[in-house]
Amino acid sequence: MKAEIITIGDELLIGQVIDTNSAFIGAELTYNGIRVVQRTAVSDTKEAILGALDAARKRAEIVIITGGLGPTKDDITKVTLAEYFRTELVMNAEVLADVELFFSKFGKTVSDVNRKQALVPASCKALRNFNGTAPGMWFDAEGVVVVSLPGVPYEMKSLFSEQVLPLLRQRFEMPVVLQRTIMTQGIGESVLAERIEQWEDEITAAGMKLAYLPAPGIVRLRVMIDGADREHCSTLLDDAVQKLLPLIEKWTFATEDISLPVALGERLKASGKTLCTAESCTGGYIAHLITGVPGSSAYYLGSTLTYANKAKTDLLQIPQDLIQNNGAVSEEVVTAMAQQARKIIGADYALATSGIAGPDGGTAEKPVGTVWIALAGPDGTVAQKFLFGDNRERNITRAALTALMMLYKQLA
Amino acid sequence: MKAEIITIGDELLIGQVIDTNSAFIGAELTYNGIRVVQRTAVSDTKEAILGALDAARKRAEIVIITGGLGPTKDDITKVTLAEYFRTELVMNAEVLADVELFFSKFGKTVSDVNRKQALVPASCKALRNFNGTAPGMWFDAEGVVVVSLPGVPYEMKSLFSEQVLPLLRQRFEMPVVLQRTIMTQGIGESVLAERIEQWEDEITAAGMKLAYLPAPGIVRLRVMIDGADREHCSTLLDDAVQKLLPLIEKWTFATEDISLPVALGERLKASGKTLCTAESCTGGYIAHLITGVPGSSAYYLGSTLTYANKAKTDLLQIPQDLIQNNGAVSEEVVTAMAQQARKIIGADYALATSGIAGPDGGTAEKPVGTVWIALAGPDGTVAQKFLFGDNRERNITRAALTALMMLYKQLA
Repeated sequence: MKAEIITIGDELLIGQVIDTNSAFIGAELTYNGIRVVQRTAVSDTKEAILGALDAARKRAEIVIITGGLGPTKDDITKVTLAEYFRTELVMNAEVLADVELFFSKFGKTVSDVNRKQALVPASCKALRNFNGTAPGMWFDAEGVVVVSLPGVPYEMKSLFSEQVLPLLRQRFEMPVVLQRTIMTQGIGESVLAERIEQWEDEITAAGMKLAYLPAPGIVRLRVMIDGADREHCSTLLDDAVQKLLPLIEKWTFATEDISLPVALGERLKASGKTLCTAESCTGGYIAHLITGVPGSSAYYLGSTLTYANKAKTDLLQIPQDLIQNNGAVSEEVVTAMAQQARKIIGADYALATSGIAGPDGGTAEKPVGTVWIALAGPDGTVAQKFLFGDNRERNITRAALTALMMLYKQLA
Repeated sequence: MKAEIITIGDELLIGQVIDTNSAFIGAELTYNGIRVVQRTAVSDTKEAILGALDAARKRAEIVIITGGLGPTKDDITKVTLAEYFRTELVMNAEVLADVELFFSKFGKTVSDVNRKQALVPASCKALRNFNGTAPGMWFDAEGVVVVSLPGVPYEMKSLFSEQVLPLLRQRFEMPVVLQRTIMTQGIGESVLAERIEQWEDEITAAGMKLAYLPAPGIVRLRVMIDGADREHCSTLLDDAVQKLLPLIEKWTFATEDISLPVALGERLKASGKTLCTAESCTGGYIAHLITGVPGSSAYYLGSTLTYANKAKTDLLQIPQDLIQNNGAVSEEVVTAMAQQARKIIGADYALATSGIAGPDGGTAEKPVGTVWIALAGPDGTVAQKFLFGDNRERNITRAALTALMMLYKQLA
């Protein structure tokens, strides 16, 4: 079963609005076993809408359109659809009642402009909109279902979930599209690809599809399959994942689509341990990642950010000569930072970072991207040196994620 | 001049990734006087890519493609483009050198998979990627320019801004489009709109366009004009901005498109003052925003993140009874946090936050979104209470930006 999504509106084309409707509909359709083959955003002109719709109907059995149903200039979508399906607009009593009810709620009378919202193409099934005035429209012609929905996200979402999906289930034999997501940290896309090449060949031969979704420090692996038998597909995916995990165990932090701070938080909660941090080059980003998780106060106590060397002494009592003799970016100092933070804040674990994020501050011996990370815990302290890159933002991101991963593995 | 944007990748179709690349490119093209007529997202299959490309080339003179250029197997854009333009892949020495340099930075040797990144269609101009390994590609055939860029946002953005736009300006006659950006913090879009309604009517009558670009805590105002005479357009914009500023002075932190941390950093550098922070509910986000600015170590000394009450006592020596008597989210405690951090870290200014980010922890008296912010400086300490909202992420963002704005205004 193939579907296409068409979003209408100049605001999408000029980048003033980010298209979240397509993402919502795409995720919902995929979850329900419908393969989304194309997404198109077009201007609110008759030619653009007709062109996109005609092309989409040639490729897919389901076309979901959002936007262009407002009471004013955007009327173009409804008129255009009526013309496309060779039908005329007729007043729909049920929709008119909804529109009048909607306005009466706000103590307003319905204007002629709004009354026009109840004009619906004769050949379509009107989908009542309980959150706004523009009804949805369901067309079913020549084996292709075309659904037009308002662009306002909460109106579109409730119409889609409560009316469109149930109707689609009645109308079509839904195939199954299943997926699994494996989250990795600390291994690059290309190194990962070489490592699992043979496995990838095997699952591809078995009809599965693998996607690499990289972000700085993180690579998300997504395995997808579609077929007729949900159980069979599910078993194939599970087997594939079971074969994959041993190959990438060292870098894997989740077999579902969750972030590393969330995965780490679950391990800390499960183990009843607490964490604190002592950041320097990561500039508070580790703390920000951890505290972005609701409920993180259950296991995260606090942090020192000692950006200036003096702060390392003032807040963590790091001896000045230790810094002078070894430099702030050194195994000795990062180790002391982790141990002191753990002692002063009184947590089970402490993560510390000290490095050169850049763009300035690099030397031949310690180039930009050099980062020392230390983890202090009940069993002592480990420190490790990394060389990331020359981009400040990515160095901060990668150093922070690498530190979180060190603890995640420690808690295994 | 018409353009189309094609984004490649199943992750976009199944809604796993929200398409921000198209929004960026759409905004940039629009700003440069190029009309974006369609945006298409397709699966990474040869048929899908060829179909979308062929259709786009019939409608537009410029086609920008992103995605599908990684080294891995699900990335087939390059091969498909080579076939489409009837050319073959050849090893590009310059790109290969870039790839080797990229890996040597990380002390890694180049794998065969990565060496393949330097294979480029013979008939295209390779665009060197200084942030990754996949080069961009510029095809110019039958009057239509087709540009293929990697999908990783920071790689795509720098390639597009630094190489594609200049090349487009050489290749096509572009109209003069000028703009001014005014950055505001702490005033909502609708309140702002009412406040400057009359001014907006005036500049609209004078042929200018105003766009509100809101983000949590920030509203960016962009005034645009296009015409033939660059100097005349520039004068009109300058006059418009001069009339606008007095109306929104209280909320304005920049008359160029820079972030609040950057604007604040410039004021701190100019005044030769130093800053430290004492965060609680903002969880390190203030520190992260400040340290995201290169060179921030010149004025930013460090921070304490005292998430747990115990940490407030351990790190800042806040008396336990002060916390018990007033609660951690109180004027007394946030004032003490700022003053203690300023004293211990020894900075000219200290910003402190204490609040309830949510989703849990709210009470009738102190609901989720309640945040106390204090600023301690040479002239004493001011503390202010805010009530943001019920969304954790936005509460953290708005509290952090509000704190930075407090100091920015103090330094005026």
